[in-house]
Amino acid sequence: MIRKLGKNKINVSNLVRNRYQNENLEKMYGLNASQCGSNNDQFDFMFSQERPLDLIELEQLLQSVGWSRRPMRRVKKALDNSLLKVGLWQHDPKFPRLVGFARCTGDGVLHATVWDVAIHPVYQGFGLGKELMFYILRSLKRKGIERVYLFADPGVVAFYKRQGWQLEPKGSKCAFWYSS
Amino acid sequence: MIRKLGKNKINVSNLVRNRYQNENLEKMYGLNASQCGSNNDQFDFMFSQERPLDLIELEQLLQSVGWSRRPMRRVKKALDNSLLKVGLWQHDPKFPRLVGFARCTGDGVLHATVWDVAIHPVYQGFGLGKELMFYILRSLKRKGIERVYLFADPGVVAFYKRQGWQLEPKGSKCAFWYSS
Repeated sequence: MIRKLGKNKINVSNLVRNRYQNENLEKMYGLNASQCGSNNDQFDFMFSQERPLDLIELEQLLQSVGWSRRPMRRVKKALDNSLLKVGLWQHDPKFPRLVGFARCTGDGVLHATVWDVAIHPVYQGFGLGKELMFYILRSLKRKGIERVYLFADPGVVAFYKRQGWQLEPKGSKCAFWYSS
Repeated sequence: MIRKLGKNKINVSNLVRNRYQNENLEKMYGLNASQCGSNNDQFDFMFSQERPLDLIELEQLLQSVGWSRRPMRRVKKALDNSLLKVGLWQHDPKFPRLVGFARCTGDGVLHATVWDVAIHPVYQGFGLGKELMFYILRSLKRKGIERVYLFADPGVVAFYKRQGWQLEPKGSKCAFWYSS
């Protein structure tokens, strides 16, 4: 996952340098884990679909980017029913810190919708959001999913546009929501 | 579910008239079944979440409203992974006919997205689409789901607007899609 982000060199450290360390990372982050490139060389970041999420830590992360508080019991159920949950961790051998998150719902084959995309404000500007979306799309593509949707707040519209997402309505599809 | 649709009187026949018949309907359409009102008094229509769907019949219905053909195996998996599947049946004691359909994906608590809404062209104009959407929203509300989304083709935008759906982007949320 070594790529360039504009003029910024993406740092992928030598974290996964040997087999011993690889096995340790697998224990901490699960089989599907992969390192997340960033343009910050102070920290190492890991994507994980398997490392258990502490609901309080997740709630704090989501609130740090301005999401409103939601009952813990409902959040737990929503996570259990999600097709894909990705935690982005600032790696530490003892206390990894959850600094990013996103999840998807869907039917597992035709459509997926991305929710709750968050990068902790302290860690914004390192290219982590872009990497997180790449990781999500790659994971969904592996499942053979054809179309991915998301609802973005106006403040992040430019972010998604830059990455090739199509803004709707554009003539082909119109989006609606309904508050029950 | 006896209501008025504009000036059209909604017909709910005496289908569910006695206990014996009720039990038979339960056998055919399952416990959550309910009669669908329409402004056509020739036929009786039933909503069912449990009556097994014949994939070929479903595919024919979806193609009759212009959806593109999809591999059966993938459609089956998508249905299996859906949160809610609603068949709308023209009632017949021996051979009910599938004349409408919709399904939802989601996390079961916070969000749901409606897909594959279809009313067979022969049965359009009887108010069935409106009743189908009411049935879907009621079923999702019972699950405590807060927000419902859908992507509409331009031709049915007015249909959803009339029913109180909010068109996006409207400043609060912007919708995106990504073809993987």
